[in-house]
Amino acid sequence: MANCNLYPQSCGIQPIRYADGVLSLLDQRRLPVEEIWLDYTDYREVAEAIRSMVVRGAPAIGVTAAYGALLGAKASSATDFETFWDELNQICDLLGATRPTAVNLFWALERVKSLVRANPEQPVTNLKIALEYEAMAIAEQDVRINMAMGRHGAQLLPQTVRVLTHCNAGALATAGYGTALGVVRAAVAAGKQVSVLADETRPFLQGARLTAWELQRDGIPVTLICDNMAGALMAQGEIDAVIVGADRIAANGDTANKIGTYTVAVLAHEHNIPFYVAAPTSTVDLSLTDGSQIPIEQRDPREVTHTGDIQLAPQGIEVRNPAFDVTPARLITAIITEQGVARGNYLDDLADFVGRAS
Amino acid sequence: MANCNLYPQSCGIQPIRYADGVLSLLDQRRLPVEEIWLDYTDYREVAEAIRSMVVRGAPAIGVTAAYGALLGAKASSATDFETFWDELNQICDLLGATRPTAVNLFWALERVKSLVRANPEQPVTNLKIALEYEAMAIAEQDVRINMAMGRHGAQLLPQTVRVLTHCNAGALATAGYGTALGVVRAAVAAGKQVSVLADETRPFLQGARLTAWELQRDGIPVTLICDNMAGALMAQGEIDAVIVGADRIAANGDTANKIGTYTVAVLAHEHNIPFYVAAPTSTVDLSLTDGSQIPIEQRDPREVTHTGDIQLAPQGIEVRNPAFDVTPARLITAIITEQGVARGNYLDDLADFVGRAS
Repeated sequence: MANCNLYPQSCGIQPIRYADGVLSLLDQRRLPVEEIWLDYTDYREVAEAIRSMVVRGAPAIGVTAAYGALLGAKASSATDFETFWDELNQICDLLGATRPTAVNLFWALERVKSLVRANPEQPVTNLKIALEYEAMAIAEQDVRINMAMGRHGAQLLPQTVRVLTHCNAGALATAGYGTALGVVRAAVAAGKQVSVLADETRPFLQGARLTAWELQRDGIPVTLICDNMAGALMAQGEIDAVIVGADRIAANGDTANKIGTYTVAVLAHEHNIPFYVAAPTSTVDLSLTDGSQIPIEQRDPREVTHTGDIQLAPQGIEVRNPAFDVTPARLITAIITEQGVARGNYLDDLADFVGRAS
Repeated sequence: MANCNLYPQSCGIQPIRYADGVLSLLDQRRLPVEEIWLDYTDYREVAEAIRSMVVRGAPAIGVTAAYGALLGAKASSATDFETFWDELNQICDLLGATRPTAVNLFWALERVKSLVRANPEQPVTNLKIALEYEAMAIAEQDVRINMAMGRHGAQLLPQTVRVLTHCNAGALATAGYGTALGVVRAAVAAGKQVSVLADETRPFLQGARLTAWELQRDGIPVTLICDNMAGALMAQGEIDAVIVGADRIAANGDTANKIGTYTVAVLAHEHNIPFYVAAPTSTVDLSLTDGSQIPIEQRDPREVTHTGDIQLAPQGIEVRNPAFDVTPARLITAIITEQGVARGNYLDDLADFVGRAS
């Protein structure tokens, strides 16, 4: 099982736990005020947990979806392969309909389905056991992948560095350790002096609530800012590098990530600050030639107009709430994956990395 | 008295009212949920109202400070000029210590003091009457200035235009009509099709709470976005022009305005979108050669970490909360004032405009 004790270094909190048919998720909507774990045995409830952002972050969504598919499969009363396969597809369809942008969701579900598809001769009971190992392997590999990504990325950072990050691409966005924050953790582990500026990341405030919380917990210096302050701090020379995660990367390197990432990339370019994307190869979608083809999730206006029950805007006001934006490859200094660091011509490097990973 | 009925067109709400020794301020901290007016007769409470942002916006701060000085002067028991003058200076010092960036505050207090300084032969009772007229004149002129600015600015906009604005530079930021939103109101009055995208403007949410509210009230189409969404909307071709207000403009055109303005200017430049600043000449500070000399107010971290009593970030987290940033003149397409539109070499135009206004 994915377990922090397996790893030699701190890998931050692990927000997704599984044991004996029960999936436990750290409710990220309640952080940083309360640390509440929710238990799931029904895949439909797991789908709702993904939709309502109990768990979020592209890699974490993938891992959770794999466990969700497992829970659905375990509950199946099918005794023949065809019935089991049909049920698994329905389960995966429901889980896949939760959030459209993060491709890791579809990648993880495909991995689960591939395992079953490849073993039609196996009895259903064996397939259920194999699925359990597969889901746990996806989770465990995610942490190992993040640590490899961290080692690659840490080499890009100078000995003393002030890193800006947007949203949460940390342990909480993965099975553990994190992507962008994995690079930070690896740099710290390598003895570098790293301090982090965390964009609060409206409207869901993943930076204020999650990035600030997990870095504070790990004792890594972190300062919280509003999203609109990053430009002024760059102009004052207070940011040395930007590292963000990704929800989907097209074949040419165009990257969808949390809304606001594009603005940070434009600002970094304006100030000659390196802008790094850290993501596993499972985030790369080679079927899309560029970022314009990435579907962008539009979320509930209430996320913008309210904080809890507090009304922040006039009733009936029109709102736009895209959850992601696309940063063109030309604004990205390098893409850090577990297979290595892609630069310049992303097309060849990314295809190569995906080939090696699969 | 400044009164909306004096003016032929809608000038939006007028958030600062004065009659018979009582200053009434619309409590902008309570909008858009509640429309509460607070009455003031003590200048010390007026200072606290400015500091705590019952009223905000550079021109509105100036007008309020003038009324505050009036209230202080009216309450003076001095019978000789010297004592009255000393008291007035103490009153103005307290009012001037409330917020450091908006130069209109100091401009208005200087105007009040100049009147008294120029009339040492007058009995104190006469000076008090003169001060009352002066404060009311400052308020009334502010609305007239904004309407002139609106006429100049409206000519810069095409017949159909989608305007992005940041913070609130509207009727609520002035004695009425607004600066940036005055340009919008004038364009609407001139028959142009104007829709507004309002940055919510963290952390104080002047865009969500105030700009959205006053435009909705006036029936001008407005859509609310988070600050970090403007870049993506520009990239999608959904913004035709940016208009913002200003808190202080240096002699060379460098402009301090609400935090996040610089980021919007960088984004507008990247997307070849005109970026306009609308401000009265009283916002121009010819004593500063460039924007690096403008003092930037740092505000309470709690504005970032909490919404009302709701905690948004971990306890003890380090926070940066600069209230303003500086946009260099090179990113500003034009500065719209009541005296005309400055472009290109701001140094000569701004000096000329300030000379004409004084």
